[in-house]
Amino acid sequence: MDDDDIRHNQPASHKVFGEAQAILAGDGLQALAFHIISSDPLVHSSTKIKLLELLSSSSYAMAEGQSIDLSVVSKKVDLNVLDQMHQKKTGALLNCAIKFGALLTDASEKDLSILELFSNHVGLAYQVQDDVLDVTTSDEVLGKRQNSDAVKNKPSYPAIIGLDKSIKTFENLYQGALDELSHLSVDAEPLRLLTKRLMKRAF
Amino acid sequence: MDDDDIRHNQPASHKVFGEAQAILAGDGLQALAFHIISSDPLVHSSTKIKLLELLSSSSYAMAEGQSIDLSVVSKKVDLNVLDQMHQKKTGALLNCAIKFGALLTDASEKDLSILELFSNHVGLAYQVQDDVLDVTTSDEVLGKRQNSDAVKNKPSYPAIIGLDKSIKTFENLYQGALDELSHLSVDAEPLRLLTKRLMKRAF
Repeated sequence: MDDDDIRHNQPASHKVFGEAQAILAGDGLQALAFHIISSDPLVHSSTKIKLLELLSSSSYAMAEGQSIDLSVVSKKVDLNVLDQMHQKKTGALLNCAIKFGALLTDASEKDLSILELFSNHVGLAYQVQDDVLDVTTSDEVLGKRQNSDAVKNKPSYPAIIGLDKSIKTFENLYQGALDELSHLSVDAEPLRLLTKRLMKRAF
Repeated sequence: MDDDDIRHNQPASHKVFGEAQAILAGDGLQALAFHIISSDPLVHSSTKIKLLELLSSSSYAMAEGQSIDLSVVSKKVDLNVLDQMHQKKTGALLNCAIKFGALLTDASEKDLSILELFSNHVGLAYQVQDDVLDVTTSDEVLGKRQNSDAVKNKPSYPAIIGLDKSIKTFENLYQGALDELSHLSVDAEPLRLLTKRLMKRAF
């Protein structure tokens, strides 16, 4: 099986059910997410609208990021394009998930901006770390083939700025995320613990 | 090019941009639909929620219907399964489009139920008619290959109940749709004209 066929050491959905059914499951799940929010009996309409606006723009960004991802294969791209791609492909929905909690508890505008910065840092850190792990970790630990980026001709941080600078970059980004949390007006311990756990991922 | 590669005599998106980019465009457009509604500045939050609930359940049904469609290829199915598949695959979103107008103008519950029956009739009529046209119309008029259902081993109304009974069925369904409109409390002339235009499609 190709690296794309494995998720967490398990065969991917498209391998088990076929590509068409797997894509349709994704389409259905996207619609289901909007249905779960819009039909929730406990959340106020005006809050639901904020959640749905954020989820829809983030989902759109994810599709856009994935489209960029496809278009840069085998191309020489600069760091800026790689950052943008990751921000859209995974950062937007991570940002969405983090802001959902804040919106559901009527957080202040200031806390929302801090959380936005926090999630941008964590999201990018996670991606740079992913690229680093792809080069440094064994297949077994990673749950997918090592060096899959290079094999698939996908641009990566280590390929553009080197391994050492990539490690330094994601460590700094995680630290930046932790720094942002200290400015929140509310208890940030759970997010701090989550961030520290992510930092140590498989190292 | 295969029949699936042509839409209205033009090459389909997946033919022009590749399958992956075409699928992503679909994902992006689905998200965009939810964003357009949720971010509209003129519609009241409680109405938006009704629209979004309906759009999400209809989109989910569409994915489900398409999944059924894939699973019945080369299988013998009864009319009931075919009806259900079409109701989900195209009927649900047609119903959604028709009800959107009613919800945006605060239509009564009674009018909403009438429009639901109307759209169920029109939706199914359109599909049965499609199957009939697939057998009876030339490629040029249809914008795709004739007999594509049979070639692809897809169950169709003419294959199950015969051509004559299929024609009678869709004519009755369109007539049933027109009958429903006469019970509406408001002017139904535009929907009546649309229905009559659909009835005459390519005949």
